[in-house]
Amino acid sequence: MEGYTATGSAYVVVPDEIVGISSEEWLLRKRGFRRSARHIQITETLLTLGNGYLNLRGGLEERPPGHSSGLYISGIYDKSEADVEEMVRCPLWTDLTLWSEGEAFCLSGCSRVEHEQVLDMKKGILHRTTTYRHASGRILTLETLRMVMMHNVHLGCMLVTITPRNFSGSLRVFSGLDGEVCNRGFFEGEMLKHLQLEKIERGRHFMYLEMKTREQGIRIAEAASWRLVSSPMHQLKWEPRIYGERFTSEITIDVRKGESYSFEKLAVVTTSREVPEKEMMKDSICRLRSFVKRGVRAEIEEHVGAWEKLWKQADVVVEGDWEAQRAIRFNIYQLLINSPRTPTGIGAKFLSSEGYMGHVFWDTEIFILPFYIYNFPESARQMLLYRYNTLPGARKNARNMGYRGAKYAWESATTGEDVTPRFASKLERTIRFIYTGREEDHIVSDVIFGLERYFRVTGDEAFLFDYGLEMIFLTARFWASRVVDAGDRYEIRCVIGPDEFHEHVDNNAYTNYLVKWHLNLAVMLFRYIGKTHPDLLDNLAVRLELTGEEVDSWLEVSRGLKLSRDRESGLIEQFDGYFDLRDYELSRFDRSGHPVLPRGVTYRNIQSTQLIKQADVLMLLLLFPHAFSQKEIIANFTYYEKRTVHKSSLSHCIHAMMGIRAKKRLRAYSFFMKTALFDLDNLHKNTDLGIHAAAVGGTWQAVIYGFGGLSIKSDRLALNPWLPKKWRSLSFSVHWRSRAVDVTVFHNRVAVLIHSDEEENIPLSLYRKMYMVTTNMKTELPYCAS
Amino acid sequence: MEGYTATGSAYVVVPDEIVGISSEEWLLRKRGFRRSARHIQITETLLTLGNGYLNLRGGLEERPPGHSSGLYISGIYDKSEADVEEMVRCPLWTDLTLWSEGEAFCLSGCSRVEHEQVLDMKKGILHRTTTYRHASGRILTLETLRMVMMHNVHLGCMLVTITPRNFSGSLRVFSGLDGEVCNRGFFEGEMLKHLQLEKIERGRHFMYLEMKTREQGIRIAEAASWRLVSSPMHQLKWEPRIYGERFTSEITIDVRKGESYSFEKLAVVTTSREVPEKEMMKDSICRLRSFVKRGVRAEIEEHVGAWEKLWKQADVVVEGDWEAQRAIRFNIYQLLINSPRTPTGIGAKFLSSEGYMGHVFWDTEIFILPFYIYNFPESARQMLLYRYNTLPGARKNARNMGYRGAKYAWESATTGEDVTPRFASKLERTIRFIYTGREEDHIVSDVIFGLERYFRVTGDEAFLFDYGLEMIFLTARFWASRVVDAGDRYEIRCVIGPDEFHEHVDNNAYTNYLVKWHLNLAVMLFRYIGKTHPDLLDNLAVRLELTGEEVDSWLEVSRGLKLSRDRESGLIEQFDGYFDLRDYELSRFDRSGHPVLPRGVTYRNIQSTQLIKQADVLMLLLLFPHAFSQKEIIANFTYYEKRTVHKSSLSHCIHAMMGIRAKKRLRAYSFFMKTALFDLDNLHKNTDLGIHAAAVGGTWQAVIYGFGGLSIKSDRLALNPWLPKKWRSLSFSVHWRSRAVDVTVFHNRVAVLIHSDEEENIPLSLYRKMYMVTTNMKTELPYCAS
Repeated sequence: MEGYTATGSAYVVVPDEIVGISSEEWLLRKRGFRRSARHIQITETLLTLGNGYLNLRGGLEERPPGHSSGLYISGIYDKSEADVEEMVRCPLWTDLTLWSEGEAFCLSGCSRVEHEQVLDMKKGILHRTTTYRHASGRILTLETLRMVMMHNVHLGCMLVTITPRNFSGSLRVFSGLDGEVCNRGFFEGEMLKHLQLEKIERGRHFMYLEMKTREQGIRIAEAASWRLVSSPMHQLKWEPRIYGERFTSEITIDVRKGESYSFEKLAVVTTSREVPEKEMMKDSICRLRSFVKRGVRAEIEEHVGAWEKLWKQADVVVEGDWEAQRAIRFNIYQLLINSPRTPTGIGAKFLSSEGYMGHVFWDTEIFILPFYIYNFPESARQMLLYRYNTLPGARKNARNMGYRGAKYAWESATTGEDVTPRFASKLERTIRFIYTGREEDHIVSDVIFGLERYFRVTGDEAFLFDYGLEMIFLTARFWASRVVDAGDRYEIRCVIGPDEFHEHVDNNAYTNYLVKWHLNLAVMLFRYIGKTHPDLLDNLAVRLELTGEEVDSWLEVSRGLKLSRDRESGLIEQFDGYFDLRDYELSRFDRSGHPVLPRGVTYRNIQSTQLIKQADVLMLLLLFPHAFSQKEIIANFTYYEKRTVHKSSLSHCIHAMMGIRAKKRLRAYSFFMKTALFDLDNLHKNTDLGIHAAAVGGTWQAVIYGFGGLSIKSDRLALNPWLPKKWRSLSFSVHWRSRAVDVTVFHNRVAVLIHSDEEENIPLSLYRKMYMVTTNMKTELPYCAS
Repeated sequence: MEGYTATGSAYVVVPDEIVGISSEEWLLRKRGFRRSARHIQITETLLTLGNGYLNLRGGLEERPPGHSSGLYISGIYDKSEADVEEMVRCPLWTDLTLWSEGEAFCLSGCSRVEHEQVLDMKKGILHRTTTYRHASGRILTLETLRMVMMHNVHLGCMLVTITPRNFSGSLRVFSGLDGEVCNRGFFEGEMLKHLQLEKIERGRHFMYLEMKTREQGIRIAEAASWRLVSSPMHQLKWEPRIYGERFTSEITIDVRKGESYSFEKLAVVTTSREVPEKEMMKDSICRLRSFVKRGVRAEIEEHVGAWEKLWKQADVVVEGDWEAQRAIRFNIYQLLINSPRTPTGIGAKFLSSEGYMGHVFWDTEIFILPFYIYNFPESARQMLLYRYNTLPGARKNARNMGYRGAKYAWESATTGEDVTPRFASKLERTIRFIYTGREEDHIVSDVIFGLERYFRVTGDEAFLFDYGLEMIFLTARFWASRVVDAGDRYEIRCVIGPDEFHEHVDNNAYTNYLVKWHLNLAVMLFRYIGKTHPDLLDNLAVRLELTGEEVDSWLEVSRGLKLSRDRESGLIEQFDGYFDLRDYELSRFDRSGHPVLPRGVTYRNIQSTQLIKQADVLMLLLLFPHAFSQKEIIANFTYYEKRTVHKSSLSHCIHAMMGIRAKKRLRAYSFFMKTALFDLDNLHKNTDLGIHAAAVGGTWQAVIYGFGGLSIKSDRLALNPWLPKKWRSLSFSVHWRSRAVDVTVFHNRVAVLIHSDEEENIPLSLYRKMYMVTTNMKTELPYCAS
C-alpha cells in the first residue's frame, strides 16, 4: 500500500475527489473556539457522526477541559448507580495528543492562530484544521478527518496530518483507546460508572480494549491500528502505555519545520450482541486486519458511496431559501446517522448524548418515525419491531398498575419496562416527583398510531400479521381495563396529556380521541382479519385468550368515550375543567422570541392556569387531518396558540404544520424555522446535552406534511402544498407502497413522477381535485393554494 | 453520645489521656511540606499505619498532586494487565477536602503557615496539624488524627477539627470512599486497574463502596459514617455525590471565625475472604452501626490498650543512644503493624506500598521471621502456614522446571507459583531479563531454615508434625533431583546466590551448605520421627510415596555436596571460579558512605569481577554461628566486606552482626545504624516505594543477635553480648519455649529474668560459661566481651 505523501494537501492516498470537502450547502462549519464547557459541548453535539449503529460526538481529539466527547452504541443501556437504566457512554478511539517540551498542544491552553471544524454532511466526514501556538512559541498545524463507516457500521477511521510551522525537534504523539469514560450523573459534576475493564491487549500492530456493562454484562470491544504513513521507510514503533482503563501508544518523532507527517488510525467497534463473548478479541483483530489489508481508501470510497445513496432517497431541496435548505439538510443528516439497523428504539436525543438517558418516548413514533416510513421503510420496521419485542415489558407495566393487556412505557429502554426516573430537576431547578411514567398514557396509542401509519404507507401485511395485530390487541385490552365506566359514558381519569404542565387531569381530549380511534381500529381489524385470514386470527385469539365478546366491549368503550367538542365554537376542551382555569394570553416575548410568563405566573403555579407547555389539542387535529373541519382547526389554533409557552422541542413543528392548515402562514414559517434551527441555534440552551430528535423529525414533517402538504387519504396520496414566498420550489421523494414518488412543488403547480415496475394509473388528490397519474412519467399538475 | 466541643483542644470526648501525643522518643515528626512527588511519597511511606490485616499510608487527606496514598490489605493480589500478580491498592476512606470560594485548601496550592504530621508509634495514631492560607487570603487550621484499630482490624477512624482563623463564611466539606485507585504500572505514570466497582450505596447515616479484584474476584467492602460532632444540635445532612468509582458526601457549613468544628469518620473494611459475598453490605453496615453505637472513645481505648500490650512484649530499650533508640522503635513499629493474623506471607515492602508488587521473598524467613518467632510465635506460625499452604504451587514450580518435590518460588504471592516478573528495569535503567525466578534456588532451604528455627525456639511439635515434616521432605526431594552427580561428588549448578551480581554460577557456597544442612535435617527427622512416632511417619511416607531408600540417598547427597573451604586461609569461595575473577577492592565512598564502583566497572560488567552486591558467604557464616571457627569468620569478613557494594537492603544488617563477631565493632555499629535508619534516612533513595522489610527485620536481629548476642545452642539459650560504648544498657524480652525471658545487658553483666509457671533451673550460656538460672527470679551474671 502506498504511503500518504505530505505535499501540502494532506492525503494523497485518499485523494480529494473522495474525501474533499463538499459544496457549501452541505457543510456545517464551526470556526474558532470558546473555552466554556457549554460551548465545547454544543459543538460536539452538532458535529456528531453516526451510522445508526453508533454515534460519535464531534469532540476535539485532545479533549480540552470541559469536553464531553462520547461514543454511544444503539441499545446499550445500564443501570448500576443510576436511578434508572441509561444509555452508556462507550470507550473512545479518537483520542490524540501531541506533546512538545513537556506541554500538550491543546486548544484550551494554547493560543490559536486558526481553528475550524467542518462537518461534511454529504459524505459523513468531520474535518478539522487547527494551527496553534504553544507556550514555548512553537506553532503547529493539526489536520484531522474522521468518519464512522456507513457501509460497514463497525469500522471507523481517522487521518491525521501534523505540520510544525516554525520549529524542528522532537514531538511525542499519543493515541489509543480510552475506556476511562463515565456517564454524567444527576448532580453537576457527578459521574456514573457503567463499564468495567475486561481486557487490554497490545500486539505489534494493534491495540485492543474490551469493556463490559456492569449490570447487563454486555461487552464492548474496540480495536485499532495506528501508524505513521507519510514516510513508510521510516517506520516508528509505538510504545504501549496503560493508564488504568485507558490504553495509549506513544510515538516520538523528530519533526522538521515545514514538513508534514501523516498518521492513519483504523478502528473497529463491536459488542457481544453481535459477536460471541469469547471470540470478541479474535473477531475484532480479524476485522481490523482485513480493514488494514484492504486499505483505508477502498473503505472510504464505499462509505462515500453509501452516503450518496442515502441522500439520493432522503434529500429535500428548497430553492430560494439558503438558510432553510441548510437547516433541512442538517436535520435529515441527523435522521440518516440514526437510521436503525436492528430492532431498536430511537431515543429523544438520538445517540448524540446522554440527555433523557437515551430513553425512548412517544417522540419516536409521532415525531421521528414518519421520515423513516416514507424514506427507509426497513428502518421504520426495525423501530416498530423494538416495540413488538418490548411487549413483555409493556405487559408487566400494565400488571404493575393493576391493568390488563400491554401498556407501553412512557420511557422505554432495554426491556420496555417503564424506566421513567422518579425525580428530576425541572424548570426553575426544583427537584420534583415525575408523574409522566404513571400518567402520560397516550404513549400506548401513539405507538399504535405509528404502526398504523407504517402499514398504511408501506402496505406491509406481513408485519401486521406477524407482529402488529398482537400489539394492537394487547394495547386495546389495556385501554379497556384503564377506562372508567361513568354510567352513560366512559372516561379516562388522572392522565397527563402532551401538555405536561397539567397533571392528574381527566379526559384529555388528545388521549381520549386517540383511544377511541385505537379501540375502533382494533375492532375493525379483528373483524376484517377474521374474515380474510380466519386461521391466523384464531391462532392469535387463542394465544391472547381473546374473545369476540371482549372485542365487542372495546367497540362499546370506543363509542362511549367522552370527548368535549363544542359544535358551536369548534373549540375542543383540552381536558375536563380546562376552560375554568385562570386564563392568560401570552403577549410578551424575550429577545429570542420565547414567550414570557405573565406576571404572577411561575412554573410552580402554572398548573392552575390555561397556559400550556406545548401543542396538545392541536396535536390531535394534526394527527387526524380529515376528522376535523377547517372551522375547528382555525378556532383551536387561534385559541391555543396564544396560550402555549413552547417549553418543549415538540411544540414548534406542530404549530408550523397547524399554522399552515389554519392559514396563519407567516406564523407557520416562523415556527418552522424555529424547529429547523432548534439545535443549530441552540434554541432551548441545552444542545450541549444532545440533539432534539423530535424537532429533527418535526422539521421533516413540517416540510413534507406542512409545505408539501402530503397526506394519505383513504389509501391514496394527497397533496395540499403551500410554499413560502421566497421558496422557488420544494423537491422530495417518498416511498409509497413499494413505489418511489418524486415530487416537486412550485407555487402554482406540482411535478410528480411515480416510479413503478408496472405501467399503471395511480390516483392522487391535489387539494380537492383527484388526478390519475401514470407511473414512470413526469406529470405536472396545477393548483391554487387559496 | 456527647459531642466534641471545640475548645482549643480538639477532642473532648476522646480526651488527651487517650489520644494525646506520647513522649518524644515514641514519635516520628514530619514538619513542613515539599511539593515533589518523591518527598510526598517518602513521608507517606514513613507514616504508615497498620494492624497486620492492612496498612494505610500516611497520605495527606486532600491528596495533593503527586501523592500516592494507599491502603493495602494483606494477601490481596491481582494480575489483570500486570506482568505478574501484584498486591492491590485498595479504596481509601481517609479523603477529605475543604473548599472555600471555589478553591480547595491543599498543601500544594496554598501557602503554609504551619504544617506537621506526627506518627505516635506508641499508640499507632497519626496526627496532623496544618494551618494554610488560601489564594483568597483565608487562613484555616486543619487538625486530624487517624488510626486503624489494632484490637479490631476491620475498624478505623479519623477525627477532624477545622478552625477558620481569619474569616467567617461558607465552607464545603467533602469526605467519602474513594475507589478510584490504580496500582503503579511498569513505566513512569502508567496505572494498572485491578479493582472494579461493584456497588455504591448511600443511606441516611452511612456510605458503602464495594469493589472486586478483576482476576480473582475478591470483594473489598468499605463502609463509613461521617458527621459533624461539634454541634450536635446543628446536625447537617450531607448530600451524596457519585464520581465514577468515588463516592463522596458534601456538607456546606457556615463557619465563624475562631470557632472550631469537629467531624468524626468511622470506617469498616472487610473482604469476601472473611464475609460471604452476598452478606458483605449487610455485615459492613452492621459492624459500622455497632461501632457508632459503642462510640469512638471506647474503641480507641481498646486500640491504645492493644498497642500497650504489643510494646510490652516487643519493646527494646537502649539507654544512652537516643538516635538508635528511636530508630529501633521505628523498625519494631513496622514489625508490629505487619504482624500476620492469618496464614499470609510478608512482602519485601510489608504492606506499605507496591514495591516488589507485594511479593514474598526469602526476606520473609531469613530477615523478618526471627522477630516474630521470639516475640509473637503465633504470627510466626501464620507465616509458616502460608508456606505450607503454598506447597501445591511449589510442587508445580518443581514440575515446571523438570524436578521432583517442591520448589518454593523466588517470588511468591497467592498460590506459591513463581511470580517473578520476566523483565525489570535494573540498575543503570536497562531493562533486563530476570533470572532470579529460575536460578535463585536457595529460597527453598531458606524457608526450611526459618521453619527449623521456629521449631527450635518454640518447641511447637504440633506444627512440625502437621505441616513441617511435609514441607521438609518435599523440598528435600526437590534438592535430590536438582543436584548433579559429578562422579565423586554432587554439585548444584547454574544458580544465583544471595549476591545477585553473579548469575548462572555453580556451587554457590551459601546454597550448597544450606542444602547439605537441609538434606541432613530431613534424614535426621525421618529417622527420629520413625522411632518416636512411627504411625505418623508411616502415614506421611505413604502420602508422599517416600521410602527409606530415597531418604538414604538424601544423606548421600548431603555428604557428597561440594563445598570449597580452604583450611589454611579459612576462606570460603563464594562459587566455583569466583577467586579467578577480576579482583577489586572498594576504597572510595560517596557522600552518604555508599561504596563507589572502581573505574572501569559498571553494573553491566560487574559480573566478571569479584565485587558482590551483598553478603553471601557472610550470610552462611551468620546462619550457622557454631559451625565456623573465629578464624574463618575473621578471614571471610575481612575478604568479602571490602568487595561488597551493598546494593541491597539485606546487606548492612548482616555486616553489622558479622562485624561484631569478627570484632570489627566500630564498623559493625556503623552498619547497624545504616540498617536501622535505612528508610528513615531514605538510604537507597526509594523509600517512596515502601519500607524495606528485610532491613527492618535485620535491625531487630542486629540488636538482639548482634549486640545482645542471643543464640540457641544445643537447645539452650546462649548470650554473647557486646554493647557500643555509649549504650548504657540494652533491654529486651523474648519468648523461648513458652517462657518469657527478660534480658538487660550492661557493659559487664547481664540481668536475666525467666518467667515460667514452674519453679525450675534453666541452663544459660554466657560466652563460654554455662549458668543455671532459676525462673521467676532476676539473676545478674557478669561477663567480659574481650
